[in-house]
Amino acid sequence: MPVVSLLTDFGLVDPYVGVAKAVIFSICPRARVVDISHGVEAFNVGMGAFLLAEAAPFFPAGTVHVAVVDPGVGSGRRPLAVKTSRCVFVGPDNGLLMPAAEAEGIREVFEITNRRMMMDEVSSTFHGRDIFAPCAAHLACGWRIEDCGRRISDYVKSPYDEATIEGGVVACVVLHLDRFGNIITNLKHDSLAGRELALRDGVQLIVKGKRVASRRVRTFSDLRVGEVGVVFGSHGFLEVVARERSAAATLRVKPGAGLRFRLRR
Amino acid sequence: MPVVSLLTDFGLVDPYVGVAKAVIFSICPRARVVDISHGVEAFNVGMGAFLLAEAAPFFPAGTVHVAVVDPGVGSGRRPLAVKTSRCVFVGPDNGLLMPAAEAEGIREVFEITNRRMMMDEVSSTFHGRDIFAPCAAHLACGWRIEDCGRRISDYVKSPYDEATIEGGVVACVVLHLDRFGNIITNLKHDSLAGRELALRDGVQLIVKGKRVASRRVRTFSDLRVGEVGVVFGSHGFLEVVARERSAAATLRVKPGAGLRFRLRR
Amino acid sequence: MPVVSLLTDFGLVDPYVGVAKAVIFSICPRARVVDISHGVEAFNVGMGAFLLAEAAPFFPAGTVHVAVVDPGVGSGRRPLAVKTSRCVFVGPDNGLLMPAAEAEGIREVFEITNRRMMMDEVSSTFHGRDIFAPCAAHLACGWRIEDCGRRISDYVKSPYDEATIEGGVVACVVLHLDRFGNIITNLKHDSLAGRELALRDGVQLIVKGKRVASRRVRTFSDLRVGEVGVVFGSHGFLEVVARERSAAATLRVKPGAGLRFRLRR
Repeated sequence: MPVVSLLTDFGLVDPYVGVAKAVIFSICPRARVVDISHGVEAFNVGMGAFLLAEAAPFFPAGTVHVAVVDPGVGSGRRPLAVKTSRCVFVGPDNGLLMPAAEAEGIREVFEITNRRMMMDEVSSTFHGRDIFAPCAAHLACGWRIEDCGRRISDYVKSPYDEATIEGGVVACVVLHLDRFGNIITNLKHDSLAGRELALRDGVQLIVKGKRVASRRVRTFSDLRVGEVGVVFGSHGFLEVVARERSAAATLRVKPGAGLRFRLRR
Repeated sequence: MPVVSLLTDFGLVDPYVGVAKAVIFSICPRARVVDISHGVEAFNVGMGAFLLAEAAPFFPAGTVHVAVVDPGVGSGRRPLAVKTSRCVFVGPDNGLLMPAAEAEGIREVFEITNRRMMMDEVSSTFHGRDIFAPCAAHLACGWRIEDCGRRISDYVKSPYDEATIEGGVVACVVLHLDRFGNIITNLKHDSLAGRELALRDGVQLIVKGKRVASRRVRTFSDLRVGEVGVVFGSHGFLEVVARERSAAATLRVKPGAGLRFRLRR
Repeated sequence: MPVVSLLTDFGLVDPYVGVAKAVIFSICPRARVVDISHGVEAFNVGMGAFLLAEAAPFFPAGTVHVAVVDPGVGSGRRPLAVKTSRCVFVGPDNGLLMPAAEAEGIREVFEITNRRMMMDEVSSTFHGRDIFAPCAAHLACGWRIEDCGRRISDYVKSPYDEATIEGGVVACVVLHLDRFGNIITNLKHDSLAGRELALRDGVQLIVKGKRVASRRVRTFSDLRVGEVGVVFGSHGFLEVVARERSAAATLRVKPGAGLRFRLRR
């Protein structure tokens, strides 16, 4: 049973997600559809890209991922199908797919132009239903990615950068606040390389110019209730957390905010 | 694999939706259940009817649609099963099913009275679980709609009217504000008939007695960021939208509000 | 097709639920996953336990229920698999599973220690993904519960008590406010036993020391719009409700609050 994942900014009140699934099952009845999130902030391509990249590694090989956060729908922005070393990603050419696809290794990128993979009528406002869902359903049910259209290489790159490290200072950006108020940054565990040990015991976190004491911990329960700490989360990004509290509320931090960490010598 | 769709005002915090699915899978393990929405405002039959009508056309023929927005649960209101030219609709007799069913062409309407299609014990507060879900599961797994009970014709009609057009003025009602703040009205593209061209270039939108300039556009990206426009949305209803903004917030419009459009000569 | 249910406090914005499903389908592609709720208040074990107990009886025999509300993740709290007379429950050893499991009759409780039933790398922050989901997927696809680890008997008990009845006064606690503002208490229909008749016609409800008149009714439509009444809900617990209104807002009651009922002689 082929797996199709869905990530959108459609929310769950409107029927748009159900409609996309109806289209998928109409074309490929044996597909299994898994929701990643439909709570991406409207038009926030960066947040969508982050959530997709966080979830994709756990899906079975051969999954067709459909992602739609698409402020440019109806304009000239192209619909893409991206083949990686283990999966396929389908969505708009605005960078949304790229962090997840790059992490798996991009093999080929196709512009979707084949009308037989779309709905008979393509609206100018709902490509999730008219292009992305049907294309993904066809791919899940056996069409080849080469059927989508022509190969391209000038696709839009990732909508966010990795953290920078200069002179012992890590400058990172808040990618996402999760439900628990954990502050997820764009600092990947890998990028610290040999310098990781400097973080072992503690870290000076600089929020809006003020220093905040915080402990580097292994898990939430190493902290006292309410205490602020930093952990590398389950997705490999550095998170600022507070035990059984919202770190985001405690530190008054919002998505897109800059945070700095001073590494101990 | 038979498809069963679900639309309710149960929300996703309480376990009511999961319970309805558990009942369906207990009776018909091979059913495939697709959520249309569980975010219908509590007791808002009109909103539920609109969302169901918007989604139903995209489901495969043979789908059994279950819809439950049911302020009259436990009273004398009847449970219905409606056969159309392509699907079956199951839910309360309060108009909820009718816009979707009428769009497909109603063939026969049955009152559900067959106790063997219900749970052994039928509560007076949760017919979604005790009548509608099990009945739909039986229908999905091969029972005939005639098994439900007797044919009736005095069912409750649609909970909302279509827009009226008089003397060049379209009077319509806001059916729904979607997640993006798009204002969806009850004016169907079809009802404009030959007069459609009058809307091509622009439209005077009258909100709370004030005239608002708005452009008739093909899609969001034809507008400047924040500009108000009107489009026929992906479901064929006229929408008032603003590019990358909430038109509902910009114009301070709520569901149920009246809007008028003056057609240009 | 084995059924796996999911109940968590993960919410639906973050991709955590989708990731858990991806893990389940990677291990057991033919599983059918049903969401009970992901809207449990963060860290509220009592609310999660209540919702699980409310939903579980409606699932088919053999269902594997996965529940994760887990403030102690990463600490020494044990992961459990609980075998009942009809199902299996998988989750943390903090009482979350117990009301639902006890209602079905607990047969055996196992501490999950078998690393082959977990992800290769087990994080200290996301056992839903790394322990509970993969363990449940293995159980759904044929592993025996004895494979999980050793039997234990000193597991944490239910996080909430049943209502007490003394001298004609029922003292109960608000377990949950549902979407409609219905106030669900911990008074089970069964515990009234022979005294049930005393409630038939009316009940003096004592909220914050004040007496509130309320009628014992069979269903919502027996009340006038806005009137407060008490019903035994579809799950067998006493609820305080108001017709087409929020009883919780009317009476200003929150989860955890105490309510008393004076039984008529």
